[in-house]
Amino acid sequence: MARPKLNFLTDLVQAITGGDKQSRATVAVDEKMARQALSRPAPERLIAACEVLMGRIGDAARVAVAEQALEAYGELDDAQKAVFFAQLRDGFNADPDAIRTAFSTYDADPTAATLVPLFNAVEPPRQTLLRRLNTAPNATLKLVHMRADLLSAMRTDPSLAPLDADFEHLFASWFNRGFLRIERIDWSTPASVLEKIMGYETVHPMKGWQDLRRRLDPADRRFYAFFHPATGNEPLIFVEVALTRDTPAEIAPILTAPRQPEVEDATTAVFYSINNTLQGLKGVSFGNFLIKQVVAELASELPSLKTFVTLSPAPGFAAWLASGDDPQAAELAAELDLGAWLTDKDEAARLKPQVDAMAARYFTQARTKSGAPRDPVARFHLGNGAAAWRVNWPGDLSDGAINRAHGLMINYLYEPARIEAQHEAFVRDGTIATGAPLAAVLSN
Amino acid sequence: MARPKLNFLTDLVQAITGGDKQSRATVAVDEKMARQALSRPAPERLIAACEVLMGRIGDAARVAVAEQALEAYGELDDAQKAVFFAQLRDGFNADPDAIRTAFSTYDADPTAATLVPLFNAVEPPRQTLLRRLNTAPNATLKLVHMRADLLSAMRTDPSLAPLDADFEHLFASWFNRGFLRIERIDWSTPASVLEKIMGYETVHPMKGWQDLRRRLDPADRRFYAFFHPATGNEPLIFVEVALTRDTPAEIAPILTAPRQPEVEDATTAVFYSINNTLQGLKGVSFGNFLIKQVVAELASELPSLKTFVTLSPAPGFAAWLASGDDPQAAELAAELDLGAWLTDKDEAARLKPQVDAMAARYFTQARTKSGAPRDPVARFHLGNGAAAWRVNWPGDLSDGAINRAHGLMINYLYEPARIEAQHEAFVRDGTIATGAPLAAVLSN
Amino acid sequence: MARPKLNFLTDLVQAITGGDKQSRATVAVDEKMARQALSRPAPERLIAACEVLMGRIGDAARVAVAEQALEAYGELDDAQKAVFFAQLRDGFNADPDAIRTAFSTYDADPTAATLVPLFNAVEPPRQTLLRRLNTAPNATLKLVHMRADLLSAMRTDPSLAPLDADFEHLFASWFNRGFLRIERIDWSTPASVLEKIMGYETVHPMKGWQDLRRRLDPADRRFYAFFHPATGNEPLIFVEVALTRDTPAEIAPILTAPRQPEVEDATTAVFYSINNTLQGLKGVSFGNFLIKQVVAELASELPSLKTFVTLSPAPGFAAWLASGDDPQAAELAAELDLGAWLTDKDEAARLKPQVDAMAARYFTQARTKSGAPRDPVARFHLGNGAAAWRVNWPGDLSDGAINRAHGLMINYLYEPARIEAQHEAFVRDGTIATGAPLAAVLSN
Amino acid sequence: MARPKLNFLTDLVQAITGGDKQSRATVAVDEKMARQALSRPAPERLIAACEVLMGRIGDAARVAVAEQALEAYGELDDAQKAVFFAQLRDGFNADPDAIRTAFSTYDADPTAATLVPLFNAVEPPRQTLLRRLNTAPNATLKLVHMRADLLSAMRTDPSLAPLDADFEHLFASWFNRGFLRIERIDWSTPASVLEKIMGYETVHPMKGWQDLRRRLDPADRRFYAFFHPATGNEPLIFVEVALTRDTPAEIAPILTAPRQPEVEDATTAVFYSINNTLQGLKGVSFGNFLIKQVVAELASELPSLKTFVTLSPAPGFAAWLASGDDPQAAELAAELDLGAWLTDKDEAARLKPQVDAMAARYFTQARTKSGAPRDPVARFHLGNGAAAWRVNWPGDLSDGAINRAHGLMINYLYEPARIEAQHEAFVRDGTIATGAPLAAVLSN
Repeated sequence: MARPKLNFLTDLVQAITGGDKQSRATVAVDEKMARQALSRPAPERLIAACEVLMGRIGDAARVAVAEQALEAYGELDDAQKAVFFAQLRDGFNADPDAIRTAFSTYDADPTAATLVPLFNAVEPPRQTLLRRLNTAPNATLKLVHMRADLLSAMRTDPSLAPLDADFEHLFASWFNRGFLRIERIDWSTPASVLEKIMGYETVHPMKGWQDLRRRLDPADRRFYAFFHPATGNEPLIFVEVALTRDTPAEIAPILTAPRQPEVEDATTAVFYSINNTLQGLKGVSFGNFLIKQVVAELASELPSLKTFVTLSPAPGFAAWLASGDDPQAAELAAELDLGAWLTDKDEAARLKPQVDAMAARYFTQARTKSGAPRDPVARFHLGNGAAAWRVNWPGDLSDGAINRAHGLMINYLYEPARIEAQHEAFVRDGTIATGAPLAAVLSN
Repeated sequence: MARPKLNFLTDLVQAITGGDKQSRATVAVDEKMARQALSRPAPERLIAACEVLMGRIGDAARVAVAEQALEAYGELDDAQKAVFFAQLRDGFNADPDAIRTAFSTYDADPTAATLVPLFNAVEPPRQTLLRRLNTAPNATLKLVHMRADLLSAMRTDPSLAPLDADFEHLFASWFNRGFLRIERIDWSTPASVLEKIMGYETVHPMKGWQDLRRRLDPADRRFYAFFHPATGNEPLIFVEVALTRDTPAEIAPILTAPRQPEVEDATTAVFYSINNTLQGLKGVSFGNFLIKQVVAELASELPSLKTFVTLSPAPGFAAWLASGDDPQAAELAAELDLGAWLTDKDEAARLKPQVDAMAARYFTQARTKSGAPRDPVARFHLGNGAAAWRVNWPGDLSDGAINRAHGLMINYLYEPARIEAQHEAFVRDGTIATGAPLAAVLSN
Repeated sequence: MARPKLNFLTDLVQAITGGDKQSRATVAVDEKMARQALSRPAPERLIAACEVLMGRIGDAARVAVAEQALEAYGELDDAQKAVFFAQLRDGFNADPDAIRTAFSTYDADPTAATLVPLFNAVEPPRQTLLRRLNTAPNATLKLVHMRADLLSAMRTDPSLAPLDADFEHLFASWFNRGFLRIERIDWSTPASVLEKIMGYETVHPMKGWQDLRRRLDPADRRFYAFFHPATGNEPLIFVEVALTRDTPAEIAPILTAPRQPEVEDATTAVFYSINNTLQGLKGVSFGNFLIKQVVAELASELPSLKTFVTLSPAPGFAAWLASGDDPQAAELAAELDLGAWLTDKDEAARLKPQVDAMAARYFTQARTKSGAPRDPVARFHLGNGAAAWRVNWPGDLSDGAINRAHGLMINYLYEPARIEAQHEAFVRDGTIATGAPLAAVLSN
Repeated sequence: MARPKLNFLTDLVQAITGGDKQSRATVAVDEKMARQALSRPAPERLIAACEVLMGRIGDAARVAVAEQALEAYGELDDAQKAVFFAQLRDGFNADPDAIRTAFSTYDADPTAATLVPLFNAVEPPRQTLLRRLNTAPNATLKLVHMRADLLSAMRTDPSLAPLDADFEHLFASWFNRGFLRIERIDWSTPASVLEKIMGYETVHPMKGWQDLRRRLDPADRRFYAFFHPATGNEPLIFVEVALTRDTPAEIAPILTAPRQPEVEDATTAVFYSINNTLQGLKGVSFGNFLIKQVVAELASELPSLKTFVTLSPAPGFAAWLASGDDPQAAELAAELDLGAWLTDKDEAARLKPQVDAMAARYFTQARTKSGAPRDPVARFHLGNGAAAWRVNWPGDLSDGAINRAHGLMINYLYEPARIEAQHEAFVRDGTIATGAPLAAVLSN
């Protein structure tokens, strides 16, 4: 721990060492007291700092205390974090009496004017606390990581959900699309950012720097990411694009093809990998904005581009096939699991019509209880207004894709003139737009 | 108006041209319809866009509609703005029934878990609307200006206050100190920023570029501003500093002294002008953060600096003197109003002890109904933990200063070792820290 | 003077304090000696530093000594500078014996191989000295200013010309076009650069910041400059462009017209002011490169632009008219000098045919002894391959233009398809390309 | 080849297609002619372009022709390059008659004034040609590579040396230290630069990105490079520094040690790898400037650093030992070649005193014919004023170091207070400064 800056920490020291509020002002805090206080266990220092932050502390002092709080948080282990989250949930809650009073006034005369005090009473002090923690240097990323810890803790203790609601509410405001900036990632990007990118790529993992370079340096590739000013060099989401002359059905050629020196004839932009990076930003969506903006940038830079399409995984296909929702599915799943098709072309050719048909059903008919498409990637692209264009089997022979989707891939088509209507139809009544190739399979 | 981007505007066009929601999807929007819709009066387009933004619109479409909304807002006159604000207040309000239901659940079992739905019910949809408007390019500054319009409209119609509460709540979150960046302003700063600075300086207005240059270019001057990534080149607050060898009592030498080529012997940093710039950010405080950070930067850059002090106006002194709060004051006010002291040194010398004494009383005893110091600048600096150090009369002979303060100025002292205790004492029980010179005047 | 860095200055101190070279190594230089040496008069320190720089000094020590030399130069007055220049000319000259020896070998067998030692013998040590001076921080600009001083001294003492040949030779190499970068100047340019621009504009001087802003901020204006990495923020040459819908005949509307919000219909780019900035770079030409590059940038940015034309002064017209080269000229000069035409439109109309005719003769027939066009601006543009397009009278009623050109202006046309042929014809046999309007005047 | 820009290429087209100069102006160059000309073999196009560049071509046209020349050069194979270099040497030579005339005048009156025309006559037109080639975009790096080709060709044909003299002369001027900028290389440096660095490191080659990162990212490492504005992202020289608590004797711990999180206690900056990058800049020295500046930066950043020392290879040791210059050496060389010491500690301990003694002799007594130290790295550091501090055996067990130096390494000490005197003594009479440890070995 760096030398504590004693200025501005008087309140914190007093809060840690105890003593009632009245007596605090009269106790002079000397360096010895401060050192003792700042050597107390991290959970004590943290909760004391949170209490001080909620008190009548000056704005400038607040920054120093927030810094101490985040430093102490960084020293907690998982169990201590769980305790701290519960403390936040229970100890920084709204005051029921204040709420009842404000509600009573509102209830008698429900206007915009009486709503204001009710809103103030209802807003959990936790949100204020998180905003104050956010005044410390580099706090935003630390708070995002804190929420990732919280999401992890919630798997054991779902009762922490109210605290998560506060995080999500604040992050939606802080990570407003208006604050994001898009940046092209290429071979002149700082190595520190590229290293993060490599670590965050999970759709089609990279094997090292040469693999990375293949994806962003050649003329036939583009790579874009969103950044937020408060999280600096941390990419929030990124998309990888290949410029081609037709709509690809397999991922391997995209990942391994030799570099193309020219893109002048490219007609098609293929979005073949989209990755969110920070677990702590779950529920704060950027993907649709990013795709829209990349389409706009590419269309402007390369007028020859006419088609904007994805080459996407089908991560829920194998599970659905095996689930028995469809009587014919289980049988096909068993055959695919045997794996003979992986080496026997005839076997693959024999199975293909069945896989295609089942895949078409999967994307157009398999639904969750709430009626959404069962495939999570499908939900994202269809929700953006894309059409399910063509199923591709086998499209990806990597282990992950075999396990999750028997190697199935799909193209979603982004057709600017139709995006909005398709989006509206999807949102309103769940209509799934399909492309001609997929429709042909369905009509067989 | 630039050519409308038809993509993504279908919903907006339908909303403007009317038709029930059910029928909308079946109505194809063609270019002619779009042009007709987008040529409707701005108030119609604006409120339609706001409604669309609150509907089930895709995120990407949202950006385009938000852009249309802000463009339409930009065409409103003051009367139309007032109408629009009232529409926002009344038409985008929380649902009383939903609130009552959520409250009822909460009331029966007031926990963090039951608070979440209550909070969601109570949060005015206006806040969601403002967040969605903020997705448009350069929206943040436009929303800040919109709030400035609102503050102006509230002078006529105070019932708009609930809408202002939403703005203030959001801005406090968006303009969180963690998102601000400090920048030194100097002669290599872009002219466009310097021009803004000139326009925003109201404490000691600048007479032109040479005057500006005097304040930021020479070795004995420093100039810092806060910027926010979403408002780009717009300075949010700035502070002007002179490096001197003693604590100055008059502003004129600061503003007009020839340039000092060296600052090696400077012992004192004088904060002689602090300006907030955007009316629309009223209530979102930056000043204390800025001062703290500038003190830290200067102390690190120039170890010879030992004293950090302001030379500040006393904008409420003349009004207080004339108010008759103090029986002797009115008499003195009358004498000062005669103005003989402005040209007659003996007269000035005769009045000085009385002015000093009355000034000392003003800063230490004159209070508002709520008990705060009557002088607004005093409230700011004392609230930051500074001490009222020394009254200076006459300190500023500019017209404004004569009118508002009979030429009185004051130094507030920022003493790092005492800031926190003084801040605490001021906040807790209104104690005003005074410096030796001021104390000496008081004890006479 | 800042504290001398004693390291690396031993040689310099010894050179200043004297002592033969042999004994120097044995004399320990202490701080006292160094201070004494560095407090000697600047001319002594300067010439000693130059001698040390030519000796067997280490590269790193060289930087420190070069810095001392340039600092000492900065303290010289004009007379001392003249003495120093003569010292450079005579004391850092090539060795005649070495030249004779090398020539003798070359003369016997004039090959590339024998030329190398001759070249080394002939190259004046002054050039080496200037290159070594250039190792000091920010030396390049100081050397450019030194040459400006030299050019000034040469007016009194033309025998310094050989030294100037060295400067010009080196500068041509250092300021090679490949090292220059073009930058657009606009309202976001640092104020320090804009201030320099204002100071350097002599063709149509600016009246202040608002005037400057009119020339670079609005949509109908462009402003470009060349910079060199070694001279940092110093613009080397700049050009001001107005985007219009026709070829202008008068400068006043260009300088004072209200801002145009749109440039979409602009067909014509008017280069109305080109300024070289640094006297010390005389003979190192940038103008043609700049114009070529600006034409290329504008053509690419605004495809609607079809015509690239100047609106240029005729700085030699009045002198030529008065010179009596043409018998009719003197009479016209006398009438113009009366100035009645300035206020009497009829008189102006009466004179116009005569002025136009004489102007046409001036641009196409008036020559210097060496056969070049008499007008210096004409030499520049015609040498670039432009055509003399149209004479405009009266085109500029500013005092300067009245005095030098009776208010005459001219358009030179840059027609990409013809530039090269016109350039070649001009260079080869002095052919002056003329536009249709000028040709029409000539044929009357 | 991109579409030829026909403007500005008329001369080139005519030069390629032939025809005497007189007739050229009358021949209109149409697109067909141009295409034919530009499809001629590269050697023809290249030499034609060089001829045009030396003619009376306009400056702007020159850029386009220079671009064509460099493009054509890029298409040559090695044999064609050798032919082209001979053409440059012989066809762009000075004119003997002009030289004789100018010499005759000079000889009669050898003054600065008569030297100027002689200099102009003697300077080979090749230098002018190279300067004009340098006006093309990105030409400087291409010319550096051209010289690398030339150096390569000179191994077969030493008679090309005069052309090399021109390159070296120009590069010394263009790559003047005043034009270089130092940059710290770290993990936020663009990947494209880091990749170059990896390729250029030959002293201690890197095994990949993780190895690279170990050398520049941790707190106990520094990495600096020089760049030139005209060669952009190309590092010209770089130095790798480890911050340690003592002077290391072995390289392996430096290269493989785990990262140190703190450098607060570091007392020693170890320069353990210095690499020049561009073959074409041979003879243009940067190393001494770089070391000096890095010492200055480190001393300022980390006041705890007291010792600046290298850990350097001894690339000539094995060859010298085997050369038989020293009678005892051959025997030792044979024993070392057996390699038993590599695995047998006792054997290594037995040999160590002999190796140390021989190494001490090697660094202090082994000389080239011209009297310089035989070791090239020793020449560099001793020439900079460093002392040969301590021999370290075995210091480097990599294959290269075993082959070239039997694993020997050495520390050179840079002691600011002694650098200059040691440099002077070394340059004047070849005195080699030795450190106490080396002196102790010598005195045994």
